[in-house]
Amino acid sequence: VRLLITAGPTREYLDDVRYLSNASSGQMGFALAQAAVDAGHRVSLVSGPVHLCPPAGCDYYPVETSREMYEACERLFLGCDGVIGAAAVCDYRPKRRAAGKLSKTGQGLSLELEETADILAALGAKKESRFILGFALESTDRRANALRKLGAKNCDAIVLNTPEAIGSATTSVELISRDGQTVATYAGSKPEVAKSLIAWLTAQIAGQQGR
Amino acid sequence: VRLLITAGPTREYLDDVRYLSNASSGQMGFALAQAAVDAGHRVSLVSGPVHLCPPAGCDYYPVETSREMYEACERLFLGCDGVIGAAAVCDYRPKRRAAGKLSKTGQGLSLELEETADILAALGAKKESRFILGFALESTDRRANALRKLGAKNCDAIVLNTPEAIGSATTSVELISRDGQTVATYAGSKPEVAKSLIAWLTAQIAGQQGR
Repeated sequence: VRLLITAGPTREYLDDVRYLSNASSGQMGFALAQAAVDAGHRVSLVSGPVHLCPPAGCDYYPVETSREMYEACERLFLGCDGVIGAAAVCDYRPKRRAAGKLSKTGQGLSLELEETADILAALGAKKESRFILGFALESTDRRANALRKLGAKNCDAIVLNTPEAIGSATTSVELISRDGQTVATYAGSKPEVAKSLIAWLTAQIAGQQGR
Repeated sequence: VRLLITAGPTREYLDDVRYLSNASSGQMGFALAQAAVDAGHRVSLVSGPVHLCPPAGCDYYPVETSREMYEACERLFLGCDGVIGAAAVCDYRPKRRAAGKLSKTGQGLSLELEETADILAALGAKKESRFILGFALESTDRRANALRKLGAKNCDAIVLNTPEAIGSATTSVELISRDGQTVATYAGSKPEVAKSLIAWLTAQIAGQQGR
């Protein structure tokens, strides 16, 4: 089974120096890639800037911006059997990126942001038989937001976690299937949780292929 | 001699997850701290989030935001004989920080930013006999901007470098003294350049104290 896994944050530049980002460390996505390799899958790992070494045996595609991640995923999607969207893709990017470094003006600044393309939704729209596992990081109306994302991105299941997981070595997640049922909850180190998620995903894909 | 050295980027949060930042790796500031320790100085290192280990023997104060860096520097300033401002402090921060994680609205967003306090200028305004070495990262009108900053921050000298230095292992800098003269240019690995800068700074402080 060939899996496409996204990881890490993206950076959305205002100019050549400043950017919008988030504190995603990439640990969950990299742990998923490691667990998938360990389970015998072939893995394409697309990650924003992180300070981690990609697992031996996976194909690694480092990117910076959400646009670059989108393009890499589009290229790799056709050849994969499943997608895990664990990246914390920036939702917004500056409408314009200035060349060089903007000088201070001595006053405030109004920064015009536009939404970035929803990578997982774009892949979900043409998923065919591929299995798509999304992630939802929610602080309020958690379950409702996760279910909305599950539908909007055409995922087979979604992993619901909280902002506390960002940059942390541990996590506590709820795995929700397409019909809105909680399939499992996992808590522990990210490698442990990743191993459980990959075991579940492997069984799901085997089941789909066996039908 | 007790030196206060700032390093790394800062993060300015929009909400609990997203922030404005820059790609400063902290390498130059940490190299300066190491070179200063090696030269026998006592070092207080105040750094934004980086993936580096502080040099053995220095007092380390990790911070996240420009406000936290400002407060740490204010506290440490009275006890120091010199300041090196190598941090890439964010110039702007969102006017409001939302709790939790803002949900996407389905449309663009106008983000209101305000200037952050100029840490080095605040310290420079009450420098008395302390030696203050600033850094200026400029892409256009480089020398003019560096000289303006040197004056505005009441520095004794300023190190002029370029956006290419950000995150890079090497750098190429011009050292400009209070009278606008280029004192030296240094190029090479950041540890090499840091060693040269600390040697120069040490001689300057010794000269001041000898007067």
